[in-house]
Amino acid sequence: MPFTPRCLDSIRAECAQFAAERDWDQFHSARNLLLAVVSEVGELAEVVRWSGDQEPPITEANRQDWEDEMADVFILLVRLADRSGVDLTSAFARKLQKAREKYPVEQFKGSSRKAR
Amino acid sequence: MPFTPRCLDSIRAECAQFAAERDWDQFHSARNLLLAVVSEVGELAEVVRWSGDQEPPITEANRQDWEDEMADVFILLVRLADRSGVDLTSAFARKLQKAREKYPVEQFKGSSRKAR
Amino acid sequence: MPFTPRCLDSIRAECAQFAAERDWDQFHSARNLLLAVVSEVGELAEVVRWSGDQEPPITEANRQDWEDEMADVFILLVRLADRSGVDLTSAFARKLQKAREKYPVEQFKGSSRKAR
Amino acid sequence: MPFTPRCLDSIRAECAQFAAERDWDQFHSARNLLLAVVSEVGELAEVVRWSGDQEPPITEANRQDWEDEMADVFILLVRLADRSGVDLTSAFARKLQKAREKYPVEQFKGSSRKAR
Repeated sequence: MPFTPRCLDSIRAECAQFAAERDWDQFHSARNLLLAVVSEVGELAEVVRWSGDQEPPITEANRQDWEDEMADVFILLVRLADRSGVDLTSAFARKLQKAREKYPVEQFKGSSRKAR
Repeated sequence: MPFTPRCLDSIRAECAQFAAERDWDQFHSARNLLLAVVSEVGELAEVVRWSGDQEPPITEANRQDWEDEMADVFILLVRLADRSGVDLTSAFARKLQKAREKYPVEQFKGSSRKAR
Repeated sequence: MPFTPRCLDSIRAECAQFAAERDWDQFHSARNLLLAVVSEVGELAEVVRWSGDQEPPITEANRQDWEDEMADVFILLVRLADRSGVDLTSAFARKLQKAREKYPVEQFKGSSRKAR
Repeated sequence: MPFTPRCLDSIRAECAQFAAERDWDQFHSARNLLLAVVSEVGELAEVVRWSGDQEPPITEANRQDWEDEMADVFILLVRLADRSGVDLTSAFARKLQKAREKYPVEQFKGSSRKAR
């Protein structure tokens, strides 16, 4: 599913402004935000916890909740990066490059095993 | 911390290509990816679990791990959105708008209490 | 699967002694232990994240890891209760009683919907 | 905080009966219960996410929620063990023994570093 084009940094800036308007930076320490991420991942899990493994677990009935909770995880993760001094774009690029080296196509094609 | 400008959809596309090259779409069902997000959030928590009270919990010694694990959470979250039919940009915009309505500035400024 | 009979409090005491011998109480604050629980739940999720639809997801190949990671979650949870002043036995009894009232058999038999 | 003495297996049996009365075994597959554990850990994190690292994060105002959510994690974890064929008492004993060998007192006293 393609995403509507938007600069990741403008999303960061909008989240930062949302927090600043409410004077919430005081609550947004790294460990507070990490626990908030955990909390939102828990809400995302709640949406599909009883779905069983039939596919797809996302139905017309739960799609709105699924999208909202996923957005919450995303917002808190962006805040966490911003507040703990992480350039998420650069961290992403560097990590994907590491993953390319750790999981070369010829050795891991079609396999879900972990790299040693 | 500003992020290097980059379109969120190009990040999605790069993650999708990484998976496609390895024929990993077969493993990337919604619940599999959700459990992978949980796993990566666990690794992020591991970095600061014993940090205790000092702020900031991110130090020179653990910053690289912190950034790598955060990037992993981000990559899996983007994959999860992509594979479960969520336009993350739109879901973000809609959720932040809901949050603006739920947490009006005049009532929640400086307060971390939950909206009813 | 029945558990080998053992008093939950003797498990707590053994975990407390393990920590005391290593002088680890200094690290075992409530939020540190909570993040440690999150970390161990992540490792548990890692065991079955790519299992997909088949049931049971626990096979001969991953059973040992599954049991070890579950024990880790349990140990940290018991430590968390102990260190944050929670009598886990009493908390359990009280919560299950609340659940009985919230989910009366006649209304929730065979249903996985959430109580309002 | 000592726990009121109670056999862990009698707790398992009580949880099993609670589920059986409601005909909920059909929902209690390993991955469903794992996601339910994730969801409850998220609710536990929610209680203290904005606490900052002042100690103790558990106050008179949030103690009841803290205990309830911890009991929920415990109940789901016990169910998960029961339903995925894990003797939690034995898994605990074996894992703590492994931890004793991995973290010998003389080398890890007063240190929170990870064993290699």
